[in-house]
Amino acid sequence: MDLILNNMNLLIWGCSGAALLYGLILSIWILKLPDGDEKMKEIASAIQEGAAAYLMKQYTTVSIVAVVITAAIYFFLGLPSAIGFLIGAIFSALAGYIGMNVAVRANIRCAEAAKSGLSQAFDVAYKGGAVTGFLVVGLALAAVYGFYQNTGDLKALISLGFGGSLISVFARLGGGIFTKGADVGTDMVGKIEAGIPEDDPRNPGVIADLVGDNVGDDAGMAADIFETYVVTAIAALLLGDLLIPGFQNAIYFPLAILSVAILTSIIGSLFVKLSGKRIMGALYQGLIVTVVLSIIAFYPITTILMADNGLYSTLNLYLASLVGILVTAGMFVIVEYYTGTKYSPVKLLAAASGTGHGTNVIAGLALSMKSTFAPILLISIAIFLSYGLAGLYGIAVAAVAMLSMAGIVVAIDAFGPITDNAGGIAEMAGLPEKVRNNTDPLDAVGNTTKAVTKGYAIASAGLAALVLFSSYAQEFANLGNNLTFALDDPRVVIGLFIGGAMPYLFGSLAMEAVGVAGGAVVTEVRRQFKSIKGIMEGKAKPDYAACVSIVTATAQKQMIVPALIPVLAPFIIGKLLGPVALGGFLMGTIITGLFVALSMTTGGAAWDNAKKYIELGNLGGKGSPAHQAAVTGDTVGDPYKDTAGPAINPMIKVANIVALLLVPFLM
Amino acid sequence: MDLILNNMNLLIWGCSGAALLYGLILSIWILKLPDGDEKMKEIASAIQEGAAAYLMKQYTTVSIVAVVITAAIYFFLGLPSAIGFLIGAIFSALAGYIGMNVAVRANIRCAEAAKSGLSQAFDVAYKGGAVTGFLVVGLALAAVYGFYQNTGDLKALISLGFGGSLISVFARLGGGIFTKGADVGTDMVGKIEAGIPEDDPRNPGVIADLVGDNVGDDAGMAADIFETYVVTAIAALLLGDLLIPGFQNAIYFPLAILSVAILTSIIGSLFVKLSGKRIMGALYQGLIVTVVLSIIAFYPITTILMADNGLYSTLNLYLASLVGILVTAGMFVIVEYYTGTKYSPVKLLAAASGTGHGTNVIAGLALSMKSTFAPILLISIAIFLSYGLAGLYGIAVAAVAMLSMAGIVVAIDAFGPITDNAGGIAEMAGLPEKVRNNTDPLDAVGNTTKAVTKGYAIASAGLAALVLFSSYAQEFANLGNNLTFALDDPRVVIGLFIGGAMPYLFGSLAMEAVGVAGGAVVTEVRRQFKSIKGIMEGKAKPDYAACVSIVTATAQKQMIVPALIPVLAPFIIGKLLGPVALGGFLMGTIITGLFVALSMTTGGAAWDNAKKYIELGNLGGKGSPAHQAAVTGDTVGDPYKDTAGPAINPMIKVANIVALLLVPFLM
Repeated sequence: MDLILNNMNLLIWGCSGAALLYGLILSIWILKLPDGDEKMKEIASAIQEGAAAYLMKQYTTVSIVAVVITAAIYFFLGLPSAIGFLIGAIFSALAGYIGMNVAVRANIRCAEAAKSGLSQAFDVAYKGGAVTGFLVVGLALAAVYGFYQNTGDLKALISLGFGGSLISVFARLGGGIFTKGADVGTDMVGKIEAGIPEDDPRNPGVIADLVGDNVGDDAGMAADIFETYVVTAIAALLLGDLLIPGFQNAIYFPLAILSVAILTSIIGSLFVKLSGKRIMGALYQGLIVTVVLSIIAFYPITTILMADNGLYSTLNLYLASLVGILVTAGMFVIVEYYTGTKYSPVKLLAAASGTGHGTNVIAGLALSMKSTFAPILLISIAIFLSYGLAGLYGIAVAAVAMLSMAGIVVAIDAFGPITDNAGGIAEMAGLPEKVRNNTDPLDAVGNTTKAVTKGYAIASAGLAALVLFSSYAQEFANLGNNLTFALDDPRVVIGLFIGGAMPYLFGSLAMEAVGVAGGAVVTEVRRQFKSIKGIMEGKAKPDYAACVSIVTATAQKQMIVPALIPVLAPFIIGKLLGPVALGGFLMGTIITGLFVALSMTTGGAAWDNAKKYIELGNLGGKGSPAHQAAVTGDTVGDPYKDTAGPAINPMIKVANIVALLLVPFLM
Repeated sequence: MDLILNNMNLLIWGCSGAALLYGLILSIWILKLPDGDEKMKEIASAIQEGAAAYLMKQYTTVSIVAVVITAAIYFFLGLPSAIGFLIGAIFSALAGYIGMNVAVRANIRCAEAAKSGLSQAFDVAYKGGAVTGFLVVGLALAAVYGFYQNTGDLKALISLGFGGSLISVFARLGGGIFTKGADVGTDMVGKIEAGIPEDDPRNPGVIADLVGDNVGDDAGMAADIFETYVVTAIAALLLGDLLIPGFQNAIYFPLAILSVAILTSIIGSLFVKLSGKRIMGALYQGLIVTVVLSIIAFYPITTILMADNGLYSTLNLYLASLVGILVTAGMFVIVEYYTGTKYSPVKLLAAASGTGHGTNVIAGLALSMKSTFAPILLISIAIFLSYGLAGLYGIAVAAVAMLSMAGIVVAIDAFGPITDNAGGIAEMAGLPEKVRNNTDPLDAVGNTTKAVTKGYAIASAGLAALVLFSSYAQEFANLGNNLTFALDDPRVVIGLFIGGAMPYLFGSLAMEAVGVAGGAVVTEVRRQFKSIKGIMEGKAKPDYAACVSIVTATAQKQMIVPALIPVLAPFIIGKLLGPVALGGFLMGTIITGLFVALSMTTGGAAWDNAKKYIELGNLGGKGSPAHQAAVTGDTVGDPYKDTAGPAINPMIKVANIVALLLVPFLM
């Protein structure tokens, strides 16, 4: 036992340390790169300041909520849980903070590298993304294991997950409202009313738009994946403890999978190299190496750790872990098919733009709805297989194996916003055309990989939420209260209905918030166009900071109500209708949440890429009526894919975790 | 017993006879009205021919499917079930056929009456709608009771419901694809490309557009409400038989409620009179009288019939029936709030049009998602109350009481498309401005009432599907196989996920189909504009019939695949994953189906009315940028509210009924 424990310590701490070290090395490498001329630096520092100011404000707002919740947890659940909550919240915030800080430094260096060529720019952007990816998994693993090692308290660990998820909801919502409010608002006045191009330095909203990419796509995404990783790990530990009681390795096994996959992801990451123009291929290269190495590495891990579990054969457990890898790979294929410019869905969407704004939106909505089917089938097959192999624990193993590759998946995602920002800096600094020609194709691929990561996070949420739900049911059983959540029990049905309404309500509030933030930007930009003389001739400088602070304030205000829905609703349902209805509520939230989130994130990316496809010169190219219609679709897709859709993933988890924490009070 | 039976015969046949007679009297009254000048007659007969040709084609297509299914039912379930299926299918088709035939004759007479004034036009339109409403409920009650009386075979009655639902799916899909394909296609070339107004006689698609109102909003809606009524009644009879076995009145009670409410609806209908301009008020007047009389009449019915049931107190059963009335009233209030031009949601949507196409669509999508919350809460409260009062039977009673007012609800709905058509005829025949000024406000109110009826149908589907699901579970129990559909059973979860995917898949196919049909119209109209000389100067007549037959052919082709989804999916799931997963599947379809359908029908109507609100002169009025953005929203809303959304109601029911029929084969 001690031998395993010592080795496990070594493995887990070694691997999370390796992730942090690898991230650190890449950061140093990036910071040493040349960071362009004065003009570029000026722009980049404006972005840095704006992003830092935003995050500071966000964390101030959230810390008030966090203090209240910490107090409540301390009062009702005790000190370890309160500390767990704080650690989860702080580490999640840290993940977002680091992700953003690297991104706002990598962007300018990527723009500078793009002067030399496509592969140079790609290298900087990918490594910038990898910093975020590996720091997120390193921090997440360290938080979960460190806390468990020191307290041994699985209940308090749930609170740690709650802390992570709560910060993540705020980060996704606040960042999402900021980035899309700034984007939509800036484009509407700039592109449509004033007729100036995207990222034009005369537009007062342009810095806010670039800040948005960082606080939304980087900080928000990092917090999101952090919570997904942490909550999935915790759910697996819990279930291991509940289902194979007394067998310590049932708890170590998920942690070992996560650890080993960090190493395979680092090795895979070294294989990401662009030669030629196959950007997606270069990314896939690294992913495939990681997948193959993980398939190999999971086998000894399983046979060594799970040999004497007494319940499931090690072969079955190993196969369950492969199911998780299958889902990851499957999501990449599916989402790329629905959002890539090479395939028929995006081409048909672009073609539908030829007959007007309305037909573009109809086709996009149809695409977004249809794109949910294959992922849902994939998740269902994964549940079927992993449950058949090793029961509920098998589902937990699959979920953990899926999430174990988060390091490289996030790297593949986070490189996108860096190139997007680099393109913006190039445009604003008046760099030569070829710089933009090197960042634009990277940006287009980034749209797809961003959608893939969101799909990945949501698919994993489907599995993780199911594990959480099972823990919820199991907790009652353990407390001697065997509840049945039967579909012919009207309480369950009412729970399913009201729970199903949550993602709809949450999503609509998020969409409205983007409208409000966008409107605020429109008003401010119009005001500056009117009141600052010489702004349109490029003689006077716009007040960028004013726009940033307006969007910051609006986003902060608008994120509060929707973020509190998943925290408060389980209380109300549990209190009014009891634990059985609350069970239905959780499942209802998971069901419609999956559909709403998948349709929004995939549909939004498809709209964006349909526009990019037209801008490549198809169907009349830039400025054609088809392009105008595609811009409308892109505008609609913005809050879909970057605000409402991705925020539903942590929202589902918060609701489930709060319910889990409520169990003792619902008996 | 004989005494009750004789009285029940008298009551049920008397009331369904009264409905049919009332419909007949109104038809004769309408047909005697003056039907305008030669020009108007020419247009109206073109609409009549087009609509008749469409329905003929539709019924030919559907009859092939129906023959196959009849044969399968005969083979597997026996002759009575096969006959039941045919009766359900034929009566449903008949309801659609009659509804359409009255509408295409009332439209021209409404246009003629509009020359005299608003209240005259209203009177014709309402009475035209009432014909459809009362014939639908009369036929539905006669079909259900006549079949039950002659066979006493409740199992075969399920097949009757299947026949009705299947026709209804085809009618809603085919009609919906036709009407919106024609609408979207005609508008895109006419309004946007050629710059000619709506309903302009030079547009070759304009007759197809007017035909569409009749085959979609009348024939489709009539078949939809027919199936909703029939299936709800049958589900209640089944559950009465299962839950209070041996107590015959448990079966008669729902039939008595339906019968009595026909009388109260006829009386209420007599109170619908427009004086002044409060159109909605005039309609509400009739509804309120019906509601009040029903509240009074249900009491003696309950106390007489259910006195000795031995399970539930008559007071509780009476209160359960009132819950149904409450849901009807509640849906009117909620949907009117979200779709009426007087309230803030539509005003805010109109305001969002001021900043562009994209913000209009974002605001509309947010509205559509948000509008699901209140109805879901209402349905949940109804389930909670009615179940608390009288268990599952209480839910069935509430559902029946809700549907019992279908006669007047349909009348309130069907008057809308008649006024819409009347306006079109007025425009095409060059009638004076004031005719249009009398039909337009009626049309706007019609948009809201159409949305209300759809919301009503879907809310009732929520209750009815729950009753069907309970019957499904109960059937297994009766066959000695007590199944548990527990949320922590992965088979149930997989069923919930895949079932949840059905409305998304179905909805996306329906949306795409409208795109295809619209594209076909665009191509044909462009062709005629080019090849027919003098068409734009009004010297040459366009080939209206060509457009009608193109949309007919496209709609027929496109409706097949989505319509077969709910028929085949339960087979596949039941066969592959067993009855427990199929139970999850049914509930999954109900859950996401409710949200998709509610959001689409309400959101679509709100978009339409936001456009109408701007056309009234707000925010720059017709032709302003806000109006153009609102036209885009309206185009998006079209397939939402008239194709995909309403077809989900019968789709949910078909899936549940097919599962119910499969029970013996899944043991």
